[in-house]
Amino acid sequence: MLSTSGVVFAQTKNASAKASKPSMSDILKASQASDWRLLNPENTLYLDMEKGRVVIELAPEFAPKNVANIKALVKEGYFDGLAMIRSHDNYVAQWGDPGEKREFKNAAKEVEGEFTVKLNKHDKQDKQATFTQLPDVDGYAPQVGHANSFAAARDPKTQTTWLTHCYGAIGVARGNETNSGNGSSLYAVTGHAPRNLDRNITVVGRVRQGIELLSSLPRGTGALGFYEKAEERTPIKSVRLASDVPEGERTKLEVFRTDTANFKALVEAQRNREGEWYKFAANHIELCNVPIPVRVVK
Amino acid sequence: MLSTSGVVFAQTKNASAKASKPSMSDILKASQASDWRLLNPENTLYLDMEKGRVVIELAPEFAPKNVANIKALVKEGYFDGLAMIRSHDNYVAQWGDPGEKREFKNAAKEVEGEFTVKLNKHDKQDKQATFTQLPDVDGYAPQVGHANSFAAARDPKTQTTWLTHCYGAIGVARGNETNSGNGSSLYAVTGHAPRNLDRNITVVGRVRQGIELLSSLPRGTGALGFYEKAEERTPIKSVRLASDVPEGERTKLEVFRTDTANFKALVEAQRNREGEWYKFAANHIELCNVPIPVRVVK
Repeated sequence: MLSTSGVVFAQTKNASAKASKPSMSDILKASQASDWRLLNPENTLYLDMEKGRVVIELAPEFAPKNVANIKALVKEGYFDGLAMIRSHDNYVAQWGDPGEKREFKNAAKEVEGEFTVKLNKHDKQDKQATFTQLPDVDGYAPQVGHANSFAAARDPKTQTTWLTHCYGAIGVARGNETNSGNGSSLYAVTGHAPRNLDRNITVVGRVRQGIELLSSLPRGTGALGFYEKAEERTPIKSVRLASDVPEGERTKLEVFRTDTANFKALVEAQRNREGEWYKFAANHIELCNVPIPVRVVK
Repeated sequence: MLSTSGVVFAQTKNASAKASKPSMSDILKASQASDWRLLNPENTLYLDMEKGRVVIELAPEFAPKNVANIKALVKEGYFDGLAMIRSHDNYVAQWGDPGEKREFKNAAKEVEGEFTVKLNKHDKQDKQATFTQLPDVDGYAPQVGHANSFAAARDPKTQTTWLTHCYGAIGVARGNETNSGNGSSLYAVTGHAPRNLDRNITVVGRVRQGIELLSSLPRGTGALGFYEKAEERTPIKSVRLASDVPEGERTKLEVFRTDTANFKALVEAQRNREGEWYKFAANHIELCNVPIPVRVVK
């Protein structure tokens, strides 16, 4: 048991006693099946390392060509036996082929960058149509919110939308040319959101489970956080598409939907936290501070 | 050597070729002695662990009573032999006495929370007077910027100023009562800035070197990221005030001043990055994305 100064600055159990509105925990407990969406195994990657599995949900509605190429690479076993090549503190962890010598079989070497996509907000088939805008101001984009449980932003003037570089976002490393990325080297954001990368690089999805396996990697001591020696790199056992993994070996996850009344209530609970601990209400929530809950399906 | 897709999304060496204004790297290279401030050994803590040293600069001008009590605890050897007790992914690492049984000698058990301080902007002796405001919008505070090389915010209406919870900020853990913290358990922000904590807890300083030793700790699997077993906790060899450490064992650091023309230029370089890699200029910088450079004095 940890007493007062040990428990510290987080919601305590008795905090909800004085609350006038439901807390995030209350909302999740009272949530219905319809508040959750099962991850589609066709768009879910398992990155398996010795210490465990990182589950990534891909977002083909935001980056169809890049997602297709990543799936092609995964299906040809491209990543199996490769490694984490970079861990840059307060920025990103990145994986791929340290020597960049591995052959591509069916995957393309160059894929057009998909930094933004057209809004298409009237297309009911389009998951972008589910964009739920936050009322909060954002310095990086005219509108921010969530689409299909991904943090996203929009610009009505240019009629574009894009996934944002929040913690856990997965992006396609590239060189100076916009088509120089192909998905063979991917990174996960493991620090304070580098939103300056938004609209400069293709974001293809988000880690839904296991981000701590990437964020707690020892930091690389080379330039930009690359590892300098082969033995510093954490090996990747395999990267597989969930649909290619036998049912019994899958990690079945549901993500909280972001187009529901309960999600709006959750955002409000986090915007102005209540309970005995909080003395000052922020009356604001920054896009990347909005939690997107995930649960394991039993 | 890493070629294009490996180098990825960071300033490349040839990026500066096309730049029309100096990059951060250019500004630092051209900086003068007057752009830097040597850390005062009287306000610098060394947290030594087996893997290395974390250097923390205290900010007595923002939290005089809490800083004084932390220094009293350090001087009586309170932290020596204690441990990291918590590592909460994308949030904080925290240290202290897991059992909370260690005796206090001279330090106080209860210290008034110093969540904000009065502006005193006309007091030339007051380091808060050096507040350099960012022109960028912020959702959490009416004004944000830097004071004495700390990220800070101000509210002219209430005539208050406070240190913000950016990556690397050090805070005083507390229970529900505002005077329940005393500095015997401290935390460092190791994830996306939890700015909702601003004005709710006492921020006493910032890590100036070695944050990666805290941010890469294995995550605790207990509630709130506390470690469940004693053997999971990383031991602390000692926490000492730099001024109590023999000259030869000190880590001499200078921090970039934030009240200079060169700091303004640095912020502008980061707000709109140039070079061949960037295709879209953010034209914005979020407070916690502003780098505050540190260098080792030879």
